[in-house]
Amino acid sequence: MTKVHNFSAGPAILPAEVLQQASEACINFDNLNLSILEISHRSKNCIAMVDEAKDLVKELLGFKDGYQILFLGGGASMQFAMAPYNLLRTEGTAGYVNTGAWATKALKEANKIGKTLVVASSEDKNFNYIPKGYEIPTDLDYLHITSNNTIFGTQMKHFPKTSIPLVSDMSSDIFSRKIDGNDFSIIYAGAQKNMGPAGATMVAIREADLGKTSRKMLSMLDYQVHIKAESMYNTPPVFPIYVSMLTMRWLKKNGGIEAMEKLNQLKADTLYAEIDRNSMFKGTTAVEDRSNMNVTFVMNKPELEAEFDKLSKVANLSGLKGHRDVGGYRASIYNALPLESVNALIEVMQEFEKKSS
Amino acid sequence: MTKVHNFSAGPAILPAEVLQQASEACINFDNLNLSILEISHRSKNCIAMVDEAKDLVKELLGFKDGYQILFLGGGASMQFAMAPYNLLRTEGTAGYVNTGAWATKALKEANKIGKTLVVASSEDKNFNYIPKGYEIPTDLDYLHITSNNTIFGTQMKHFPKTSIPLVSDMSSDIFSRKIDGNDFSIIYAGAQKNMGPAGATMVAIREADLGKTSRKMLSMLDYQVHIKAESMYNTPPVFPIYVSMLTMRWLKKNGGIEAMEKLNQLKADTLYAEIDRNSMFKGTTAVEDRSNMNVTFVMNKPELEAEFDKLSKVANLSGLKGHRDVGGYRASIYNALPLESVNALIEVMQEFEKKSS
Repeated sequence: MTKVHNFSAGPAILPAEVLQQASEACINFDNLNLSILEISHRSKNCIAMVDEAKDLVKELLGFKDGYQILFLGGGASMQFAMAPYNLLRTEGTAGYVNTGAWATKALKEANKIGKTLVVASSEDKNFNYIPKGYEIPTDLDYLHITSNNTIFGTQMKHFPKTSIPLVSDMSSDIFSRKIDGNDFSIIYAGAQKNMGPAGATMVAIREADLGKTSRKMLSMLDYQVHIKAESMYNTPPVFPIYVSMLTMRWLKKNGGIEAMEKLNQLKADTLYAEIDRNSMFKGTTAVEDRSNMNVTFVMNKPELEAEFDKLSKVANLSGLKGHRDVGGYRASIYNALPLESVNALIEVMQEFEKKSS
Repeated sequence: MTKVHNFSAGPAILPAEVLQQASEACINFDNLNLSILEISHRSKNCIAMVDEAKDLVKELLGFKDGYQILFLGGGASMQFAMAPYNLLRTEGTAGYVNTGAWATKALKEANKIGKTLVVASSEDKNFNYIPKGYEIPTDLDYLHITSNNTIFGTQMKHFPKTSIPLVSDMSSDIFSRKIDGNDFSIIYAGAQKNMGPAGATMVAIREADLGKTSRKMLSMLDYQVHIKAESMYNTPPVFPIYVSMLTMRWLKKNGGIEAMEKLNQLKADTLYAEIDRNSMFKGTTAVEDRSNMNVTFVMNKPELEAEFDKLSKVANLSGLKGHRDVGGYRASIYNALPLESVNALIEVMQEFEKKSS
């Protein structure tokens, strides 16, 4: 089969060996002669698998005691609601740094639950940069940030320093670079970018920050209910958790986050260098805020896009179309994307430049 | 490999050919040379797959115009909250028929949202029967029922006749018998029993019944938000939907619900006949309310359970342990379980009777 270079923004490329293991477990999981798709989530083997996934998250993000790991359904969009639902007091205010479409959605949900304050925003320039130098009031119930903006191609290189609980949506750059998980109150991430397939969302919670609201909570929206049931209050999304666990195992085996961060930096540097060099393209974001995960760029002569698309197709490049809010192109270069695929894209960019200039 | 007879209550047995197709799609979906786990949910092939799943639900349940099909994360437990959240008016009352642990949980969530009325209950006899002959007030916002009670092994053979919107949790007997979907306002079902693997919940909604509350709704809990986005408001649980779609295709190819209902009746009749005949066992529920999906039975001499368990293990019978609320045994005999597995269980029951009497 021809190799497809998968630049999809999410659901996104996963390691070939993980896909192979996932495929095999659909027939026979853990030598039980049963599929992973048809065993009880309360079986010994399934519980051990979910526990391994939790332990890997703890290890990869360096959590000390006091953190609980959940794998929930509903995507990061559910966390846009659950974070304020669990943390925002009736009399309190939540702070938001608005750096893009997803941050805006998170803010919108919080507004339905309580009072919010936009501490900083880059909406004035279509979110093409990360705000800096803003003040964070110390009486907020929490500060919500988005570590990487999948659509706009920006990434927070440094996290706000603050004494209030920090909540981060890390859906599109979790496990891509070294962070200290203990700096955060809540980290959540939809699995379908750097962690696994669609259908599971990882939520890491500093348990001491919970229980401060008086809200009467729906069970499925209550972190404490899920924590008490060890992430099995209801039947969890078993297979998406399994594939996430396999991907974390793969990551650990391949040098862990340090090795991944180096490779991601190399891939990003290589691709951005070509964007800056190539006379046909230009980047869309502030240089210092460029994402190492989602590389956004546009064509200097947009009327030639069809020609570039044709060359991309011939070279088996997939998933390059930019989001409608930015236009142009977006190359998502998550952990599992090899440098080889970045080079394949660069070759096409260079071929296109030669043909067109 | 030795054949395992999988009587798990859920996640539960799926057809072997579906598991094979699922396994293959983890490597190469739709001949794209990409895994189903790594393609965009907005890609042409993925949208076509989800559309096929919706169409199959409509066909199998016989829905006329006006119904919308969603596949959501969060399980049936999320629907315990979403149904009242979307249907129960501030000034209204919701009716519940309480037939077991899951119905009780559904009621508990509704109580957090508004006023409820328990129209009928079988709690007085540990839920071992289905209440009958009760009156349904006509001024309720809706009536909630549980068509099959996985834990207690009872099944509603006839649905309440009423003019008010009928909401049914059909998690454990969806697609197992002929019903007219148009009798219901909402049908929801966690996939992981008769429909597919864990991680997706099907919700069928009569759209005209929505929009009657004044509640300010969180987006992810608002059916209308999901309907407007054609079940892709956020990234859906792609793989669980895919396997559900494959299972529905398999069902249709094998004679549809009519053929399945006949086979299910035969499996249930065969197994209940043995329970009634065998001097070592007895059923736990009212005979007329026995579930054709979850067959619950206990031993007349519970001290011999370990001996029976040993024989079951040798015969590769899996997942027979009863729920702690009932004790004894539970054989879940969902659509995908072949008659051959029921016969294997009966052989062990007979062998045990011979040895023990």
